Amino acid sequence: MADDTASLSVFLESAIDAARKAGEIIRKGFYEVKNVEHKGQVDLVTETDKACEELIFNLLKQHHPTHKFIGEETTAAYGTTELTDEPTWIVDPLDGTTNFVHGFPFVCVSIGLTIGKIPTVGVVYNPIINELFTGIRGKGAFLNEKPIKVSSQTELMSALLATEAGTKRDNLTVDAFTKRINNLLFKVRSLRMSGSCALNLCGVACGRLDIFYEAGFGGPWDVAGGAVIVREAGGEIFDPTGGDFDITSQRVAASNPSLKDKLVTALRETE
Amino acid sequence: MADDTASLSVFLESAIDAARKAGEIIRKGFYEVKNVEHKGQVDLVTETDKACEELIFNLLKQHHPTHKFIGEETTAAYGTTELTDEPTWIVDPLDGTTNFVHGFPFVCVSIGLTIGKIPTVGVVYNPIINELFTGIRGKGAFLNEKPIKVSSQTELMSALLATEAGTKRDNLTVDAFTKRINNLLFKVRSLRMSGSCALNLCGVACGRLDIFYEAGFGGPWDVAGGAVIVREAGGEIFDPTGGDFDITSQRVAASNPSLKDKLVTALRETE
Repeated sequence: MADDTASLSVFLESAIDAARKAGEIIRKGFYEVKNVEHKGQVDLVTETDKACEELIFNLLKQHHPTHKFIGEETTAAYGTTELTDEPTWIVDPLDGTTNFVHGFPFVCVSIGLTIGKIPTVGVVYNPIINELFTGIRGKGAFLNEKPIKVSSQTELMSALLATEAGTKRDNLTVDAFTKRINNLLFKVRSLRMSGSCALNLCGVACGRLDIFYEAGFGGPWDVAGGAVIVREAGGEIFDPTGGDFDITSQRVAASNPSLKDKLVTALRETE
Repeated sequence: MADDTASLSVFLESAIDAARKAGEIIRKGFYEVKNVEHKGQVDLVTETDKACEELIFNLLKQHHPTHKFIGEETTAAYGTTELTDEPTWIVDPLDGTTNFVHGFPFVCVSIGLTIGKIPTVGVVYNPIINELFTGIRGKGAFLNEKPIKVSSQTELMSALLATEAGTKRDNLTVDAFTKRINNLLFKVRSLRMSGSCALNLCGVACGRLDIFYEAGFGGPWDVAGGAVIVREAGGEIFDPTGGDFDITSQRVAASNPSLKDKLVTALRETE
């Protein structure tokens, strides 16, 4: 069986290996002058991004030749776009690309494995501050090999909220974004924007952040790794409307169990 | 003379020593359960904050007994509130207190020395990710002893902006805050909120951030250290209205020289 515990541990190990090797590339590039291509107005893709995806896909493909692959820069060689029940690696080789380009230290590799469409193995690695978040479904979540859990905060007013402005700059999107922030600032302690969806999820998982929501990010690669880690840390991952989390929806929210309903209620006020 | 180069180097060394020792206390507390006192709704003060301020003031007072001291938690023993022309240490023992309480890794010690009211020596130290920013007026700015400079970004549309929601939650403040963000999101690449004014200033100094503004923060201790570092990195520090920087005004903006006027113009649109 591909999904027994021993196999999952093997899958995690190869994902960690890939994340660390890609992290080396990211760390080097982070401190160097970077050659940047533009993809739209705000979305930047770097050579590092492409080199990391190739490295990760090649390494995982070598160890797990029957697995499927979905990546942000999906390669012609291995790429697929449709999520099936097959074991599928969903990879963001460099989450926080804008941060990378500017040298802001919230960047990471995000690697998730879905089996039966369920996020089952997750690795999120920030090579700049050397934080490795890992999780296996049913086996807990870890930061640098130490178990992590979500915060025990029960009051929204004491909660640290993260969200992101995203990359869309039409009036509808920006107005909805600032209207939500305006409403939420009266209900939470404070607001953080780090520029990395995967690291925000891990921030909730280890209790640095209490709640996080984002709509309109790039794709399943932003959340596939973090989703396992949040759940295994005792957190909830869900649609900002309160519905079930859909990895393909480009919408996500995460919190500890106590704050989920309070966050959803607050978000509904500005729907 | 108290302000010659040799003296300034000695002042910097004692500030670094104090920042590193306080950083040790912060680092320990960061990874432990913390006993928190509330000061207002959002503003938190921790035991660590107090222990750090005591340590820093005692150490600086010992080396520089004639100097004046201004601190966030100004102690009865050494404290003063009025800024004079005398050499004055202005200290935030723990900037990013909310981050500290939540375990979000943007926390720092900020130490600035003014002489003739001019920020002259600055040290900002993040003990969690081990980044030490330093500057002496006329002698350059450094991150972990390597020279730093502001970004060369000339277009607002490519700029990474930082600001903060602050701690005030009245309608006027929050509405003004989100109105500004709404306007700026159409003009800049993206937005970050780290929760530390001093680290935002250092982010501009080392080019991670291109522009930063904040109004309504705690006091001169949030900006005294960073102001020297920004200027010595080739950056500008000014009032968000475009006027001269006033260390006591609780308003600050920072940028590279190319973006100053563009930021001020954009901020004026929502005054």
